[in-house]
Amino acid sequence: MRPTRLGPPDAGIQATAPAGPAATARITSLTVHDIRFPTSRELDGSDAMNPDPDYSAAYVVLGTDAPDGLAGHGFAFTIGRGNDVQAVAIAALRPYLIGRSVAELCADPGSLSRDLVGDSQLRWLGPEKGVMHMAIGAVVNAVWDLAAKRRGEPLWRFLAHAEPEWLVSQVDFRYLTDALTPGEALALLRAGRDGLAAREAGLRDRGYPAYTTSPGWLGYSDAKLTRLAEEAVAAGFTQIKLKVGADLADDLRRCRTARAVVGPDIRIAVDANQRWDVAEAITWTRALAEIDPYWIEEPTSPDDVLGHAAVRRAVAPVRVATGEHVQNRIVFKQLLQAGAVDVLQIDAARVGGVNENLAVLLLAAKYGVPVCPHAGGVGLCELVQHLSMFDYLALSGTTENRAIEYVDHLHEHFVTPVEIRDGHYTAPTAPGFSAELRPGTLTTYSYPDGTFWTADRAARTTEHTAAHKEEQG
Amino acid sequence: MRPTRLGPPDAGIQATAPAGPAATARITSLTVHDIRFPTSRELDGSDAMNPDPDYSAAYVVLGTDAPDGLAGHGFAFTIGRGNDVQAVAIAALRPYLIGRSVAELCADPGSLSRDLVGDSQLRWLGPEKGVMHMAIGAVVNAVWDLAAKRRGEPLWRFLAHAEPEWLVSQVDFRYLTDALTPGEALALLRAGRDGLAAREAGLRDRGYPAYTTSPGWLGYSDAKLTRLAEEAVAAGFTQIKLKVGADLADDLRRCRTARAVVGPDIRIAVDANQRWDVAEAITWTRALAEIDPYWIEEPTSPDDVLGHAAVRRAVAPVRVATGEHVQNRIVFKQLLQAGAVDVLQIDAARVGGVNENLAVLLLAAKYGVPVCPHAGGVGLCELVQHLSMFDYLALSGTTENRAIEYVDHLHEHFVTPVEIRDGHYTAPTAPGFSAELRPGTLTTYSYPDGTFWTADRAARTTEHTAAHKEEQG
Repeated sequence: MRPTRLGPPDAGIQATAPAGPAATARITSLTVHDIRFPTSRELDGSDAMNPDPDYSAAYVVLGTDAPDGLAGHGFAFTIGRGNDVQAVAIAALRPYLIGRSVAELCADPGSLSRDLVGDSQLRWLGPEKGVMHMAIGAVVNAVWDLAAKRRGEPLWRFLAHAEPEWLVSQVDFRYLTDALTPGEALALLRAGRDGLAAREAGLRDRGYPAYTTSPGWLGYSDAKLTRLAEEAVAAGFTQIKLKVGADLADDLRRCRTARAVVGPDIRIAVDANQRWDVAEAITWTRALAEIDPYWIEEPTSPDDVLGHAAVRRAVAPVRVATGEHVQNRIVFKQLLQAGAVDVLQIDAARVGGVNENLAVLLLAAKYGVPVCPHAGGVGLCELVQHLSMFDYLALSGTTENRAIEYVDHLHEHFVTPVEIRDGHYTAPTAPGFSAELRPGTLTTYSYPDGTFWTADRAARTTEHTAAHKEEQG
Repeated sequence: MRPTRLGPPDAGIQATAPAGPAATARITSLTVHDIRFPTSRELDGSDAMNPDPDYSAAYVVLGTDAPDGLAGHGFAFTIGRGNDVQAVAIAALRPYLIGRSVAELCADPGSLSRDLVGDSQLRWLGPEKGVMHMAIGAVVNAVWDLAAKRRGEPLWRFLAHAEPEWLVSQVDFRYLTDALTPGEALALLRAGRDGLAAREAGLRDRGYPAYTTSPGWLGYSDAKLTRLAEEAVAAGFTQIKLKVGADLADDLRRCRTARAVVGPDIRIAVDANQRWDVAEAITWTRALAEIDPYWIEEPTSPDDVLGHAAVRRAVAPVRVATGEHVQNRIVFKQLLQAGAVDVLQIDAARVGGVNENLAVLLLAAKYGVPVCPHAGGVGLCELVQHLSMFDYLALSGTTENRAIEYVDHLHEHFVTPVEIRDGHYTAPTAPGFSAELRPGTLTTYSYPDGTFWTADRAARTTEHTAAHKEEQG
């Protein structure tokens, strides 16, 4: 019988697991794949700072010698060049994983997180930021995936039913205690349990609200924007998002077009992707205020806490949102302390994995700021839905003014892709973190030797040769 | 004739260079070396967060086809594990360098800096932080080394005599303009020119003040601390630094010992290397106040601007210093805006190279905060002396309350090592950025295949085999 509430570290499994191979299973392999999709050719994902992304994943698979044959899957998301560097950083963590007890790791993913973040030499490469921190996040998330699969639960449910004391033990409070203590976190989680069963029933019934960015990429024509905005409303979305920041006249035209299409009751968020300095962010956002934007996202550098605070003071009632590029819990803490944001946007694959996102969700709950995750790219929707569903069930207790970003790209590459119904994410039912790519995707889009990239190079060579012959001819 | 003032982009060279190979020279190679020194075995460099550093460099050499045979040298500093990841990140920048005009690069290193920092795909890995940003810094610094060598000047002099307009063109003001505009920067640099010749004569005569951390590593015995503190005072240093943060009773004993040895007139800085949360930093620093510490360094996370501000308010008159792990100009800007620091500590090999450090020096000048660089490790002294000397000659105009950290490690590996005389850094005379390692160092300490590491592995295998035989016997 599967316990409906998880105890501390894998107690259920330890109490019932047979002696022998399952109890002594070890991590036996850490495999990394450099996966790239040629998304730049369609201008999918184009914004003011990222005009030509090739959505990519440095994808990690943890193998074990357990008889259940389960593997842990995780990834860092990048947008093309540098995905090889990210893959090497993940591979550098192999010695920390190989030979480790699967039961112990899954009972306490926080122990791995602390080992990796606190490594006395690796931390010089951050600390807790950039390539090395994203690598840690990928590996830690793979352990959570494995832990949830072994428990036979989707991650959102594994987390929502875990004991508050155990969840608190999974959070690294270093550098947070001036804003949030372990005792406060425990109180928030205990209070969050009230009404869990009713919320879970509602979640299974209706799902979690989504908003869509699909209409709003900067490279799309007005006709495509119009069509996609109409489709978004028809599909049940109550919020869409438009990229802005390259040209103010263009932005105004596109925003007015979108407002005319969706009417006054659909929220339109706008997203500058870090394009502006503080003064420019204020001027530009005020100019866009006529179309009633719901929030301005990433108005300036994700590192600029004080800058965001200045922008927020100046552009109210337009809300300020940020977080997809925020490097760690310490910067999230300051955004909240400084009153710099109205909406916090976590990303499942930028910080140090589930453990650090637990810290960020707890901080947001303490400060009463809604979390509306960043998603899209490749697999970010698949991952982050679990964190928002946990947040709703066991922490915030509400979906009001909350929605997960949704972008309709590349889901077909996942074994258990997200499902959107009537503008909501359906609660996943498959055990794990929804992070596993299909085998065909690995063979096709591995870079540079997958079948797609090999054929692509051959085609370019042929074109080049033909053009050369024509010139010569 | 060499111009005594540099004009904009290589005007002198362009005006006098012969037509032909020199004018058309290109970057033809970018070579990366993973260099590691076994410093952890002596506890050199041990502190509260970094107990066992193996000082390392991901070292880059830019080769050209110019007839002068000059190369550009740069590096990222790490403390061991992960140096391979850092090396791969530098190698990933090769396509941005190969084939580029040497004259154009050296005339405008800022163009490379902007290309690398602004790369639409690579920026996802930061932006402007961690492994990828340190890689950019290494390569950009190598270009500055080459530029100064081609000019026949040590970098400090190249910078100090450059036209203010050109220096301003080398700074990326993105995300800075709410604190510092290009016009303000130009005014600071123009004002800094007054009295340059007299200061330069003084610098050549006396050098630039240094302070020493050599006595204060956490792993040293009290006897060794006493001996090294006595030697430091005898050698002319007027400030020493002690590592603290592992154990308060030990810290008090060590600090009292040091104070007794050096007397009341030598400054003692203490350095917690990010060990504390805000409340703990305040309590601990107040407890150490009895020995009259000159500053408390890195009391908490380098990402925590608001935390540093809170600590500073609480521990005055003890000064707060930080910066060696500050990721970029945007965080430095906020430390100054928030009044979070009394002393700003730049590092030559953490941010995006000379260009970004110019921005930080300008910000510090604007806010009137003295810059006392972080150094030590391997080669950090060699690099950063040039930046402080430029700061003195052409910007701050004073060395009052300013000193460059000095640690007496690993200088013998450099072709032009720093020279310390009577507690001062001697102004370098060799052209360039003092970044070149000796050929023997590359063959000995390349990891894992240099002669030192090969012999080390062989010795360990022999020991292991001997121990095994003993057990069996």
